Amino acid sequence: MKIALAQIDNVIGDVENNKKKIIKLYERAASEKADIVIFPELALVGYTPQDLIEKAAFRKKVDEINKEIASHTNSETAILFGSITERDDNIGTGVFNSAILGLDGKIVFVQDKTLLPNYDVFYERRYFESAKKVNIFEFKGEKLGISICEDIWNDGDYWKHRLYEVDPVQELINQGATLLLNISASPYGYGRRSERRDMLSTLTKTNNLPLAYVCTVGAQTDLIFDGASMCFNSEGKLALMGKTYSEDYFIFDTKQNYAEIENVERPLEEEVHEALIYGIREYVEKTGFKHIVLGLSGGIDSAMVAYLAAKAVGSENVTAILLPSKYSSRGSIEDSIKLAENLGIEYKTLPIKDGVETINKSLEPFFKGTQPNVAEENIQARLRGLYLMALSNKFGWLLLTTGNKSEIAVGYATLYGDTCGALAVIGDVYKTQVYKLAKFINREEEIIPNEIIVKKPSAELRPNQTDQDSLPEYEVLDAILKLYLEKNKEFEEIAAEVGHPEVVKKVLRMVDLNEYKRYQIAPVLRVTRKAFGYGRRFPIVQGWRR
Amino acid sequence: MKIALAQIDNVIGDVENNKKKIIKLYERAASEKADIVIFPELALVGYTPQDLIEKAAFRKKVDEINKEIASHTNSETAILFGSITERDDNIGTGVFNSAILGLDGKIVFVQDKTLLPNYDVFYERRYFESAKKVNIFEFKGEKLGISICEDIWNDGDYWKHRLYEVDPVQELINQGATLLLNISASPYGYGRRSERRDMLSTLTKTNNLPLAYVCTVGAQTDLIFDGASMCFNSEGKLALMGKTYSEDYFIFDTKQNYAEIENVERPLEEEVHEALIYGIREYVEKTGFKHIVLGLSGGIDSAMVAYLAAKAVGSENVTAILLPSKYSSRGSIEDSIKLAENLGIEYKTLPIKDGVETINKSLEPFFKGTQPNVAEENIQARLRGLYLMALSNKFGWLLLTTGNKSEIAVGYATLYGDTCGALAVIGDVYKTQVYKLAKFINREEEIIPNEIIVKKPSAELRPNQTDQDSLPEYEVLDAILKLYLEKNKEFEEIAAEVGHPEVVKKVLRMVDLNEYKRYQIAPVLRVTRKAFGYGRRFPIVQGWRR
Repeated sequence: MKIALAQIDNVIGDVENNKKKIIKLYERAASEKADIVIFPELALVGYTPQDLIEKAAFRKKVDEINKEIASHTNSETAILFGSITERDDNIGTGVFNSAILGLDGKIVFVQDKTLLPNYDVFYERRYFESAKKVNIFEFKGEKLGISICEDIWNDGDYWKHRLYEVDPVQELINQGATLLLNISASPYGYGRRSERRDMLSTLTKTNNLPLAYVCTVGAQTDLIFDGASMCFNSEGKLALMGKTYSEDYFIFDTKQNYAEIENVERPLEEEVHEALIYGIREYVEKTGFKHIVLGLSGGIDSAMVAYLAAKAVGSENVTAILLPSKYSSRGSIEDSIKLAENLGIEYKTLPIKDGVETINKSLEPFFKGTQPNVAEENIQARLRGLYLMALSNKFGWLLLTTGNKSEIAVGYATLYGDTCGALAVIGDVYKTQVYKLAKFINREEEIIPNEIIVKKPSAELRPNQTDQDSLPEYEVLDAILKLYLEKNKEFEEIAAEVGHPEVVKKVLRMVDLNEYKRYQIAPVLRVTRKAFGYGRRFPIVQGWRR
Repeated sequence: MKIALAQIDNVIGDVENNKKKIIKLYERAASEKADIVIFPELALVGYTPQDLIEKAAFRKKVDEINKEIASHTNSETAILFGSITERDDNIGTGVFNSAILGLDGKIVFVQDKTLLPNYDVFYERRYFESAKKVNIFEFKGEKLGISICEDIWNDGDYWKHRLYEVDPVQELINQGATLLLNISASPYGYGRRSERRDMLSTLTKTNNLPLAYVCTVGAQTDLIFDGASMCFNSEGKLALMGKTYSEDYFIFDTKQNYAEIENVERPLEEEVHEALIYGIREYVEKTGFKHIVLGLSGGIDSAMVAYLAAKAVGSENVTAILLPSKYSSRGSIEDSIKLAENLGIEYKTLPIKDGVETINKSLEPFFKGTQPNVAEENIQARLRGLYLMALSNKFGWLLLTTGNKSEIAVGYATLYGDTCGALAVIGDVYKTQVYKLAKFINREEEIIPNEIIVKKPSAELRPNQTDQDSLPEYEVLDAILKLYLEKNKEFEEIAAEVGHPEVVKKVLRMVDLNEYKRYQIAPVLRVTRKAFGYGRRFPIVQGWRR
């Protein structure tokens, strides 16, 4: 059987344009005499429309377009695409996450999703009911076993601990499926693609069945979908893989022999590098912004974001603003200029000294007799945020925020200051990983000036300040954070592993107490399996270990 | 049977202190010879610990305390309390939302929750598995039918459209329950209490069974739990009701006759008034803040929040800051001073003129040749936010934000300016309701100066500006918003109902386009059934009706 995989990027909720893209690729597949063309999970509506699904008018429109898409099919080439369907029986939401099969002008088969993920960034049970049953669909001599994303992630042969009691793909195999099709939308997190390959390889090999697994691609605000659709032969070998971070279209012929693809995921820095650039580009393109603005401090984080932005939208579409204060070192300014020149981006200087002085003077009647503290430091950061937002508002530029994951974790950032911006580009990248990423970027030539990489990290908000006045060394901090945030380890376990119990205690406390800041930050581009944002939810007001 | 209802407030995750409170009230019930004392859903851990539940160390601690609480019981007085339990069978989370029954020193019965709400502000399927079955528990001649919150909200006699296929309370009745106990945690939204009474009255009357329904009370960041535990006799009459917005403890004797309670919910303004004051007070008490600061603009919103704050923490613990600009009218300043004097709160003036001038001057090289637009307006709002945060940081004061629901809906607020603050006090109150609330507050004497109530709403960010330069009249706006936000109606239906199709189109577009602002605002105290925050989730980047 000739299966065309349409690995498309779409805009959430933009059903008219998504429809056109789907029909166009159906026509291509039909002209190439494919037997079936398959599109990702929720291809028509995007992953995921969230509460748009609760709007009856939205669902009605989707229902109409589902039929319209099927009406374009002939009797030789079938279409399988992800969408939502509705069948109200007066119990539950009546809404399903479905794979719709169109043939000969109409919808001939619908398979609803059985396993609805509801952990981390997934909230599918908020909207959908589970499939009541699964059925194979016979077509051109094959028995198609059709499933949707999570449905295929509950294989008892692969997982020691399973998330669900039922295994819809095993049920399809029991019904005699001869070919597995899975339509998917899996947000990227490092390591995920290798795991996917391993799991699907085990499944196809164990059951001696070929599989076409089509993935969505694109970034949807914070979630990055990396594409990399996969086709396996019945020996469990990866025969074809779609492009990463790009739309793709290709045909998998189950009768053909393919050389096995061995490597599916590149080293962390390479993947994260590409994912972040893609995430910025997608946000800009889908929102219609033309130009990016950001503040350059002379530190590695803003340098990194400037580089990624220039890569994403082109140097000519990025403006960097230097906002020196009286605490900014000459080096910070020189290094920022060198960076901007290396990147070929416009830079301008907007000293904050006068503003800070006037503000401090206005506050004198309030502050007299007090010692300088974080209040004075934050004024500087907030004034910078104010200037950057003024430029954003005046010229319609998109402001990116530059905080890294380590900082966001411990609240080492000024809310409404450093955190101003629409997208937290490296908010899921630990400080130590930012350095590694810089090394990767500089592997052939010095793009990020070495001075920026080797200097001691500092917020430069008071004389001779360094990050390590308030924080442990980043190697130690990141080791603690990784165990705490991603592995859900607690004090005793972390102290046993990392040492420095007093430091561990302090760091965990900082993470907990800064939940209120994270509640108010911009969406964070997700590149690990546990990012800040919807995928991690802790109460702001709580008393566990306080 | 004598049932003590312990309507307690707790701190999420503070299991040690919550435990002490539970044991203390158990001892009181035992000394009063109650047969059983019942505590709300998740009473030990708070509603809801969110991702704390994913921490093994947290669950382990909870498991220990569950047993410890039971160890305090004697053989005459049982305890029933909400907690989490864990029984890992290698499928799913293995974690349950449970009612634990302790008697004679140990846990003798556990009933897990069957129906796990996963809509609006509820995300229980993220954490919990459903009960496999329900069982009655026999005690002192009664067959107790024990259920948890949502379990009792699926009565086929009451609901035309049901959310779940199974009805655990009906199953308990079928098993011969003679007395129903429900432990609950239901966040308040106006109308909810009357609905609860109606539904429970139908249930108890239809089945000819008494019911004790114990509710949690307290505010957990944005969610306000109003208490009002209810006891029904077997004729469906409301016999006893707990206090609202306050802890309570009382005994329901199923053998005793009670006069029926008719009125359970007061007019909207009264309820919202009390709920918001309670929400502020709880936030302050649970976070340990001692003092509140907020900006007074001369408008009704900040006046309202100042009043609510003074009521919540006492006039002596509130400082109001007047931040006039060159566009501020004399009236705004005079009215603010009058308000502060009426409330007995401290007020100080911090003119922003100098700061704005310096900032504008610093921006001159960037802005020259451009026309004044929203950029210049936002500078003023952001500088005010900066000053308020500086005071908050310097003195450890809690900054409250003052935007109303109508403004937040259409994005008529400056992000990082008006939106600075830890808690959006009236973010779930429409502008027209703010006026009604003011009228209620002034019912006996003029507390909020009449000048503030009658003046045309204005942000005073440019000469002679009024809100209605950019927005429709608030009566029209709020009618549109209510249908759009709360009823999920779309353009055609709203235009048919409200008229002004062009206005409706513009408003819906404003709501959609400002999702990015709402992503970054403070938690909103929830007083309706659909508030901004976790309970309403729309994609930031999307193309539905754009």
